[in-house]
Amino acid sequence: MNDATIIVDETGTQRLLGYQIDIGQAPHGICRLQADARHLNRSGVVHGGLLATMLDNASGVTASLTVDPAGRRPFVTLSLTTHFLAPAHEGLLEARARVTGGGRRTLFIDAELHDGAGRLIATSCGVFKPARMPEAAA
Amino acid sequence: MNDATIIVDETGTQRLLGYQIDIGQAPHGICRLQADARHLNRSGVVHGGLLATMLDNASGVTASLTVDPAGRRPFVTLSLTTHFLAPAHEGLLEARARVTGGGRRTLFIDAELHDGAGRLIATSCGVFKPARMPEAAA
Amino acid sequence: MNDATIIVDETGTQRLLGYQIDIGQAPHGICRLQADARHLNRSGVVHGGLLATMLDNASGVTASLTVDPAGRRPFVTLSLTTHFLAPAHEGLLEARARVTGGGRRTLFIDAELHDGAGRLIATSCGVFKPARMPEAAA
Amino acid sequence: MNDATIIVDETGTQRLLGYQIDIGQAPHGICRLQADARHLNRSGVVHGGLLATMLDNASGVTASLTVDPAGRRPFVTLSLTTHFLAPAHEGLLEARARVTGGGRRTLFIDAELHDGAGRLIATSCGVFKPARMPEAAA
Repeated sequence: MNDATIIVDETGTQRLLGYQIDIGQAPHGICRLQADARHLNRSGVVHGGLLATMLDNASGVTASLTVDPAGRRPFVTLSLTTHFLAPAHEGLLEARARVTGGGRRTLFIDAELHDGAGRLIATSCGVFKPARMPEAAA
Repeated sequence: MNDATIIVDETGTQRLLGYQIDIGQAPHGICRLQADARHLNRSGVVHGGLLATMLDNASGVTASLTVDPAGRRPFVTLSLTTHFLAPAHEGLLEARARVTGGGRRTLFIDAELHDGAGRLIATSCGVFKPARMPEAAA
Repeated sequence: MNDATIIVDETGTQRLLGYQIDIGQAPHGICRLQADARHLNRSGVVHGGLLATMLDNASGVTASLTVDPAGRRPFVTLSLTTHFLAPAHEGLLEARARVTGGGRRTLFIDAELHDGAGRLIATSCGVFKPARMPEAAA
Repeated sequence: MNDATIIVDETGTQRLLGYQIDIGQAPHGICRLQADARHLNRSGVVHGGLLATMLDNASGVTASLTVDPAGRRPFVTLSLTTHFLAPAHEGLLEARARVTGGGRRTLFIDAELHDGAGRLIATSCGVFKPARMPEAAA
């Protein structure tokens, strides 16, 4: 892991949740979170919405990497389907995404989220498009 | 709005993100967030993952309300599909859910998220099941 | 029901499956099927894939009706999420769709499929875009 | 390909559409279709609903293979999300599925559909559960 490829603290949501973005494994975008008590739901496991957020982040940066090596060009998430396979506990979580299809106007991107023990926690598939600045949704 | 029906600060994620849960409009579960700079993404609009989190919350509490008037009985999100229709800006956001089908073992729940001006921002449909304590995913 | 608004036998799939398209309730596109033994799966109920096909048809014609009163302008389905709430038996089935959001380049469309007794059988949400002739996927 | 592992003409839908099920590559369930003019939509490509049907079939038989080597034990599709990456033309199509997670009560299954040239046409992810006879939806 090269520090030059790790993005931290660049947006409000990123500072609030504390995740990192890794652009050093292109074409795969990576989102990591050291989950702690702040990320848990009523059942004492990581909130599914935060897992969806990580999958969306990994997918969005993967979309961005198709046109911008710095992984910052914004893309809009049109749809995101997330499947929750297993509960996630406190500790390291990592979401990794890949483009499965699409072209200039639309990208199809799948992502998987594993915990530190390598267990598959959640998966997603989504449809993304380039943002027309200045407005974008994800 | 009756304070007795508003749930605040009960879980790590809720304290971190700052949303409220309203169980006073049963059978509809409601999740509200006063979005501010902490909830924005790189494009300056509310992060889609946080919208998904709100839709998941509204859906989960709606599931809970089918068996628990207090809206606390945990349900597991099996799948959640979110559609992002329009960007959300800082200000009040509200997600509201309804059961469309299912039974004792499985619930199908749709949700809609509007902004304070009544604009439809995002929708979701998901599959939920009762959690078997102590483990659950959302 | 006005015969001038009912589309039958216009495509290979439509002739094979036997469904009708009704453009007489615009802006809602309708797809109807008189389900019989040819449409059943191993469990003796209507195949979920055919329910998805009906939901996709209703959604696609709803998309088309936004730009073409004849409901024939082709749109491409980018993604379709279908929820199967209850089994469907032989008899009349009807899928009805509505636009929930989007614009010139992308449409978000929800659909519901009921049986002849008014029971909700399946729901869908999808993302659609105008086809660039001559190629399109749905 | 061993004829003993190829299922043909066993249900109404299978006879109507003409697809084959291959249980000889367990744990992967396979669904093949020799697409022809009967399977085309208004744009002259294979109807997306039939692609969804193939992905659902491959997923369902994959679910069945987890408990029945003959691949006939029925499972219910709770939800199915399909992404349409590229148009499919007349000729051989093959959908292949794999279990990504779940357990005794719920299975998460992904599937991919390729054409005869190896091009990825469509993908799906779905949630499945064992059918309680005699009723089941897919």
